[in-house]
Parts: sequence; structure tokens; C-alpha cells
Amino acid sequence: MPKVIRVNMTDLSVRIEEAPAAWAGLGGRALTSTVVAAEVPPTCHPLGPNNKLVFAPGLLSGTAAGNAGRMSAGAKSPLTGTIKESNAGGTCGRMLGRLDIKAIIIEGQPASTDAWYNIRISNEGVVVEPETETVGLNNFAVLESVARRYGEDKGVITIGSAGENLMLISNISTRDPEGKLRSFGRGGLGAVMGSKRVKFITIDQDGTRPVPLVDSAAFKAANMVFTKALKDHPVSGQGLPTYGTAVLVNILHEIGGLPTRNFTSGQCEHHDMISGEHMYDTIVARGGEPTHGCSLGCVIQCSQVYNDKDGKYLTSGFEYETIWAFGADCLIDNLDLIAECDNVMDDLGVDSIETPVMFGVAMEAGILKFGDGKEVLRLLREEIGKATPLGRVLGGGTALVGKTYGVARVPVVKGQGIPAYDPRSVKGIGVTYATTTQGADHTAGYAVATNVLNVGGKVDPLSNVGQVELSRNLQIATAAIDSTGLCLFIAFPALDIAECLPATVDMLNARFGTKLTMDDVVGLGKTVLKLEHEFNLAAGIGPEQDRLPEFFELEAIAPHNVKWDMDQKELATFWNF
Amino acid sequence: MPKVIRVNMTDLSVRIEEAPAAWAGLGGRALTSTVVAAEVPPTCHPLGPNNKLVFAPGLLSGTAAGNAGRMSAGAKSPLTGTIKESNAGGTCGRMLGRLDIKAIIIEGQPASTDAWYNIRISNEGVVVEPETETVGLNNFAVLESVARRYGEDKGVITIGSAGENLMLISNISTRDPEGKLRSFGRGGLGAVMGSKRVKFITIDQDGTRPVPLVDSAAFKAANMVFTKALKDHPVSGQGLPTYGTAVLVNILHEIGGLPTRNFTSGQCEHHDMISGEHMYDTIVARGGEPTHGCSLGCVIQCSQVYNDKDGKYLTSGFEYETIWAFGADCLIDNLDLIAECDNVMDDLGVDSIETPVMFGVAMEAGILKFGDGKEVLRLLREEIGKATPLGRVLGGGTALVGKTYGVARVPVVKGQGIPAYDPRSVKGIGVTYATTTQGADHTAGYAVATNVLNVGGKVDPLSNVGQVELSRNLQIATAAIDSTGLCLFIAFPALDIAECLPATVDMLNARFGTKLTMDDVVGLGKTVLKLEHEFNLAAGIGPEQDRLPEFFELEAIAPHNVKWDMDQKELATFWNF
Repeated sequence: MPKVIRVNMTDLSVRIEEAPAAWAGLGGRALTSTVVAAEVPPTCHPLGPNNKLVFAPGLLSGTAAGNAGRMSAGAKSPLTGTIKESNAGGTCGRMLGRLDIKAIIIEGQPASTDAWYNIRISNEGVVVEPETETVGLNNFAVLESVARRYGEDKGVITIGSAGENLMLISNISTRDPEGKLRSFGRGGLGAVMGSKRVKFITIDQDGTRPVPLVDSAAFKAANMVFTKALKDHPVSGQGLPTYGTAVLVNILHEIGGLPTRNFTSGQCEHHDMISGEHMYDTIVARGGEPTHGCSLGCVIQCSQVYNDKDGKYLTSGFEYETIWAFGADCLIDNLDLIAECDNVMDDLGVDSIETPVMFGVAMEAGILKFGDGKEVLRLLREEIGKATPLGRVLGGGTALVGKTYGVARVPVVKGQGIPAYDPRSVKGIGVTYATTTQGADHTAGYAVATNVLNVGGKVDPLSNVGQVELSRNLQIATAAIDSTGLCLFIAFPALDIAECLPATVDMLNARFGTKLTMDDVVGLGKTVLKLEHEFNLAAGIGPEQDRLPEFFELEAIAPHNVKWDMDQKELATFWNF
Repeated sequence: MPKVIRVNMTDLSVRIEEAPAAWAGLGGRALTSTVVAAEVPPTCHPLGPNNKLVFAPGLLSGTAAGNAGRMSAGAKSPLTGTIKESNAGGTCGRMLGRLDIKAIIIEGQPASTDAWYNIRISNEGVVVEPETETVGLNNFAVLESVARRYGEDKGVITIGSAGENLMLISNISTRDPEGKLRSFGRGGLGAVMGSKRVKFITIDQDGTRPVPLVDSAAFKAANMVFTKALKDHPVSGQGLPTYGTAVLVNILHEIGGLPTRNFTSGQCEHHDMISGEHMYDTIVARGGEPTHGCSLGCVIQCSQVYNDKDGKYLTSGFEYETIWAFGADCLIDNLDLIAECDNVMDDLGVDSIETPVMFGVAMEAGILKFGDGKEVLRLLREEIGKATPLGRVLGGGTALVGKTYGVARVPVVKGQGIPAYDPRSVKGIGVTYATTTQGADHTAGYAVATNVLNVGGKVDPLSNVGQVELSRNLQIATAAIDSTGLCLFIAFPALDIAECLPATVDMLNARFGTKLTMDDVVGLGKTVLKLEHEFNLAAGIGPEQDRLPEFFELEAIAPHNVKWDMDQKELATFWNF
């Protein structure tokens, strides 16, 4: 029977339970959101004892399915006040799948803030112990310490100093197959882990066996169809493996949707210097790896290893949104500096979207100058890293910096920074930002695919027509995909190649012996969105907050001279399903 | 015809309009809230161009009515996101009454933040001019500058450095009859004025005539009845004039409702050292004035002049809530230090409730130690006063400090700090905090009167029974009183002495020739509350946010060992009227 591990940090007790039968068809986001919605009071303080931090591998985690290496973390977010799911690659999802652990639920909170703890999970059971060695250390040092103390092959889930300091930009990091970091990035979940006084969790898969499949031949056949689709699609098979997600820099610049200088223009003069093409050339010239995976079994390989001028490792998982935010939104025209920032952010354990979007507002507030990448590095290391008063302000994220400095042009929805696609010139993604249960989150319903990349058809990015429906369909599909452990990027072939999505359903059925249909999968996505929405409504986040900040309605953006002009009543129809 | 002055700060234009006929029966809060509700988009950014800052004298302003010296300021609050009314004494209300100006509405916002402006209003018209001399100066220096440049007899409405720096704890200050400061304290309205780039407004009543009365004999007769009631009631006639509002320190300590050490106890060991009785003795011993008014025509005289050890002026308008917050909530056992803090807060232009409540959370966050009044003074002067990063965090108020430092025990409702009466042991005021349209605000419906002081009957402070009805009735009455220009403290006699409230209605009728009844006044209060509530709902602040923070439900408070346990469904019945 699948297990659920509950660790109560109030009394340091552990319960290993059989997973309820009702959770059989749930994994990843579907499960984290189900637990949070059922067990966390929507109006609780996110950093208080009543919040819960839930980790759940996807339904396909641990199998040989292509790109099934994602795992979800969920809680009430201290950044947004909403329910939150954030997923990451790395090795833990696979290991939890093999351990037959459906969820780890961290509850309660020690009364004293004197001590920290680690949690170690293996086939033998669960150990909770006081932790001292890594307290105050950042992520790379934690990984080293864990490898030395418990072995190099352990899965690790950890927070850096930002999470310890309960910063709202803090994330939760996890070890990837090569000992680097992947992140549950958004929503300040690192602060939730910090509020539980858990410094790290290790997962040990020793003694486990491969995940059983009810029909292994059918699984293998479906997986072949699926991985072929991933390789055949131009985005997942060519664009992403070659240039990584930064392939989007030039594309978004071209269509005028690359928010620049804290969202005051849609194009950036020095786009060439921060483009995926430039990154590719740089990586190749320095002996890095342009094509690289975040987890075992990844077919798309959108990650990379980016070395510095001396050929020394600088960063990996160097994403478009991070490069955009520092490169265009903060006007830093030096990719090496941005890569160094990415490395430092990984080490501190801060969201590499929220953090640079915050810096755009900090620049507008006059805390530093637009384009000053060296000062960003100093602020990351010396202020955020040391939790000085200024570091704590910056560590509070985009909305908090705006409030602290009285800035009115603050790109957030529900307190979370808006990513790399201007909603005025890519209106479909604006609908997603406004309506998703997660606060501004492009991954919740990536309408850029259909607005800009012509994946899954074509909807004019500058027109409001059809955007609500587009975003709704994508958000439903995403909620389902996020529940399987599959990487969201499978959506590109899934939208264009007819046999791709049915193959994922076939894999689920072959894994569990179920008879799920495509309708069931869509139904799961709808169920997840609705329960997340109900949580938010009960938390006091109503339809009036399903909106973009006012400045998008007041300020037209170059080059199309467009404002955000979607009617709120039309937006509200999003929930008609 | 009564006039409305509109100053558009986008193009620096002025329009002097006839007041709409529909505004005839509106003044003070009824008028500021009517204008804000009608003209400010509820979802606008409070510091953006679409917010409006409205000043309105009360319906009785400028007359000889006792205690009619209050005037309202209104806007969408940057602290709470709600509609906001804040009122103050001083000389401007009276002057605007004589000038027959019903409202000053400051609209728009200069595109550039290079310049500041002053606005000067007189019988001759309105002048808007660039201001340089007082930019960066604090309130006492502004008053000096204005007196030197424009005469000592002018009414002044100004912001200190905190308002210029758009801090959420900033208030708007106004000159009192003796050249000291009174404050539109709550909700960060100083930041709204700062966002309009208005440093100060002067009012010149030269050439005006006494306010005309339709029936001056009837007015005089009613005013005599009214002022007699004010003098006859033990609270307004004896307690407040003698000890000021600080008379409440020992009373609240006795009943266990004096929040201490950031709301972790209901009693404070050193209550004697911060009591009204101690303050009275100190004032008398040093040649100060225990009994003093904030505006001409004040009968109650709850203010005082508090001198330092050398007999030099230190502060006035030294209120219970400020003394409580520093004295008990921050554990500062030195009244002189608290008085000095009060003086500095007046000078900087920060809310003397929000600021010390924030310091309680800052102490819990470890920014400074509980009880360290000297460090508070330093932080006020050197950090908040100089808008350092730490100063900006503190200047962001209670909720922002909590978010920045990850504190879960944060006493706020809708982002505004909870004042001096613990809702666990004075449950009626808890209903007011949770339900008022203003964010936590004791003055919105002062249930302490009936829960603790036995004014207007007696409702057991520890029982939930009857509290919603009590708070509702008081909130309705308060909304009406806040519209007249009368001081809220007239509520004490109004609740106990039968002829008091009818006398105020008689004064209104004698002033305007109307035939208002008590029912009309109650109707006005209801109308004001409802339109404020509608604004908040449209701003996305729904019934789920009509609640106290979670810690009041989790932590019992000494000495009664009581939690907050009012059912949310019962609270929601507040709006059934």
C-alpha cells in the first residue's frame, strides 16, 4: 500500500499511514492541493503552526516514463496568501515513487525557535533529528554536508539562508542527478519550511525495487509513442534542447512582449546579448553543455551547463525567465553576470523569477541603478545573504519592495511577481496571470504557446478574443499534467501531436491497471483548479483580486502601443466550467 | 452656495465648483467617503494618479457648537487598501466652515517626481505653487516656515518627511490653535498626500464672516443643552479633562485588557508608571497643563501640555493609545521617553498608534529589545526620519514589519495595527476591529464604553453575547458623529444623557433650517457605513477579511485565560441592517 508520511514538528512525532483510498488517483499537484485544501485553514498565518508543507511525487514518478521527474510541493503561500503548488526536477520524485510514498506532510511548528531539525526518510522509516552543522549555510554547502554525512546518492530537499530567515522570495531546493540544484521556486515555500524549523530532508532509496507496472508491455509501448512525440515536436525536440528556454528572448523581443525596464517597454535594445542563441555560442565556446536534463529520464533536456570565462562551472537550469528579468527588466546586458546571479540565487535559495522581478522594482525605487549587475550581486550576497534590513526588504519580494518604497508600478498579481511575458502584448498570458489560483504564474496556463509560438493553433496575442477560453483549457490541462510528475514542456507536443496525450493516459493505465480516459484527465484538472479556487475564496482572495495591477491599464507599451483592456466581467467567466 | 475645490495635480489646475445639491446633508466622513466611493476606482493603486485625497469639514464646522472642531480626510488607504476616513482637531475645519468650502479634493499626480507643491486657499481663491523651502523638513519646521511666510494665523495641513517618503505609517498633520500639531492619524494618508506631491496646504479665513445660522436662538439653546451634557457626564466632564485619555491605562490593566509585550498578556506590571494618574501628577509638578483642547470650542479638553523635567514643552495630545503601545505593548516604563517619542512622531508625521504597535512587532522580530525606549527614539530619528532601508521597513507599519521578518504574531486587521484594547478580554471592540470598514480602529465603534466603562449600559466584555449588536449600533452612531465635525467623545454623554444627542440634531436643524430627526441621523450613519463597505467589497476586501488575526484564536491571554472565539458567521451578521 502506498504510504503517507506525517511529520509533526510541534512534538517531533512521525506517523506513517496508509494512503487513503480516495487519494489513489492523485499525485503531484492534485495531491498537494487536496491535502492543503482539506487540512489547512484557509485563513491561517502561512508561517504559523496551522500551515502544512506537503511534498508529493507525481503519478508516474519512479517509472521509466519520459520526462516524469517532476515532484510537487504545496502549502498556503506566505507570498500570495493563496494555495500554492510549485514543482521541481531532481532525484527525489523518482525515489519517493520507488519508496511508494505518496506524500510527505510536515505539520505543526516547534514552540521554540532555538533548534533546527533534519528529516531522513528511507525504506527503514523516518528519523527526525536536531540539526546544527548546516544551520546558517547555503544550499551548495548543505549538499556537501549531506553527501559527506549520508552519502552522495541521497535525494535532498533543503532551504538556504533565505528560507531560514523566512524570506518571502525563498524557495525549496532539491538535488539533481549531478549534485546541482533544482528548485520548487515560487511562492516563498522556503519560508514555510523554515517556519517548521526543517533545514533539510534526505531521501534514501536503498533497498527499493523498481516501481511495479500492472501492464509493463503496454507501458513501454505508450512510453515509446510519448517520447517520440517529445522528440518530433520542433519546440521540445529542437528549440529547447539547443537553446534552452532562453530561445524565447529574441522571439518575445520580436513580438514586443519582452517586458523591459520594469515593464515600461516591450522590447529591449540589447536582446542579442541575452539571447538563447548567444548563450548557446557562449556555452559551446567554453566547453559547457548546451543540452542537459534536470532529472533522470528527461528526453527534452532544456537545461544546460554554463561555464565562466575560465571554463569553470557557473550555473545550470539557467532559465529564460531569469535571463529576461535580469537582462531586459533590469537592463543588465551581461550574460555572465546574470549567470553568476543565478548561481548565487541557487545557493541562497531564492526564487529566480521573484528575485529579479523584485530587483526591477528596486531599481525603479532608486535602491540601485538599472543595469547595475554588480550591485545586484552585492545585494544578493551581502544584504539578502546576510539578512540585513535592506536584504530583508529585498527578500520580501516584488510587492513588499513596492510597498516599502511607495512604488506604484509594481508587476504582481496576488503578491507574486509577473514573469517574462507582457500581458499587454500577449493577452492570453495576462488572463492566466489574473485568474490562476497561484498568483502571477506563466506555467499555470502557458498561453504564450498559442499566442506566440503557434503551438496548439493560433490566437492573436493582441486581441482579447478567445484568450479566456485558451487560458482556461491550458490551466485545466496544466493542473492535470502537474499531477503526473511529467514536465510541463510535454504540453508542446501534447498540443500539436495527436497521439502524445493519449500515450500519457495509456501509461497511467498501464501503471495502475485503471481505465482512465482523456476525459478523466481533463476532469482531474478541473477538480484541482476548483478545489484550489475554493481555498483561495475561503482565504479572502475573491474575484476582485483576479486582476492585473492598475498600471497595465494606464500605461501603453511599445512597440504596439497597447494597454491591458480585458473586461473584468469577461475575466470572471474563466471560472465557468 | 457652498463650494468644492478641486485641485488637479496632474496639470496643476484648480476648479472651484458649486457643491452638488446631493451633498447638502453631508459633511466630514459622510462627504469624504461619498466622494471616494463615487470617484475613486476601488482597485486603483492608492499611491497612483487615480486615488483622490479629500478633506471635508463637518456639518457643524465653523459654528459655535461645542466640540465641533473636527475635520475629516479621506482616500483609498495605502496601508489597508480600504476606504479610509481619518479626522483631526486643529483650526482648519472651522476655517473651511467659515469659507463655506464643503470639500477640498486633490486629484491626479504630477508625471514627474522632481517637484513639490503647496496649495493656498483663501477667500480670494486657490493658488498652487512649486514648493522648495520646506521640502525634506518635518512638521514643526513646516509650521514655522508657513507662519513666517504666510502669517501665524493660517490653517495648515502638512506632511513631514514620512509622508514625503510615502511611508505607510505617515499621517497628515494640522495646526492647532496654539501652533502645535494635530493629526489625521491612521491609514497612511500622508503617503497619499506625498504621492500627489503636495507638501502643505494653507487655509486663510481672512475676510470671512461667521457661519450663518437659520435659527440662531434655537442653535444657542441647543448648544447650551449639549455642552451641559458634555460637562455633566463623568467621562467627558471629569475623567478626560483631568487625566486625558490615559485615564484608561489603569482601567484596562485592571480588567485584563491592556495588551502587553506584543499582545502576549492582558496586564502590565509597570502600569502605574504609565498611568493617567501618574501623567497628571507629572504634568502638574512640572507646570504643564493637564487640561487643554485640540481645537477652539472644545468643552471636554482631554488634551494636555506635557513638559519635560526642565519644564520645557515636550508634547500635547498625548493619547492613551500611544502611551499604551509604547508603555505596555513595547514595555517602556518611562513616560518621559514615551512623551519624547510622541513629540518626534508628531514631527516626522507618523501615526502615533500604528508606529508603536509596529515597534511591538519589531521587538518580537528582534530588531530591538522590548523596553528599549532609547533605541525607539534612535530608530525614529535616525532610521525612519532618514528613510534608511531599516527606516523604510519600520515606516511600512505593523503588517509590513511582520512580513519582512516572518513574524506570525502580528496584531493587524486589514493591514492596520490593532490598538490598545485586547479583543480577547474586551470582545465588543474585537467585533469593531474585525468588521469596521477602516481596518483595526477602536474609534470606529468604541465598544469599550459599554464593555468596560459602563457607558450606554453594560455588556459583559468576556462574553460574545450582544457584542455584534453593540458594535453595530456604535459604528452607525460614530459614522454619523464623524460627519458633523463633532468630537467622538461626545458619545459618552450621548449614550447616557437623554437630551444630548437630540440637542446635536437641533443644532443641525437650526444651522440649516432642516427638519432632521434622530432617525435621519441614524440613517446617515447607516448610509455611510454601507457605501464604505461597498467600496471595500469592490476593492476585493470581502467578508473573509472581516476577522482578527489567527493568533488571537490560538493563544489565550492572562489574566482571564481567554481566546478570541467569536464565530465568523455571527460576525458576518454585523452587516444585517
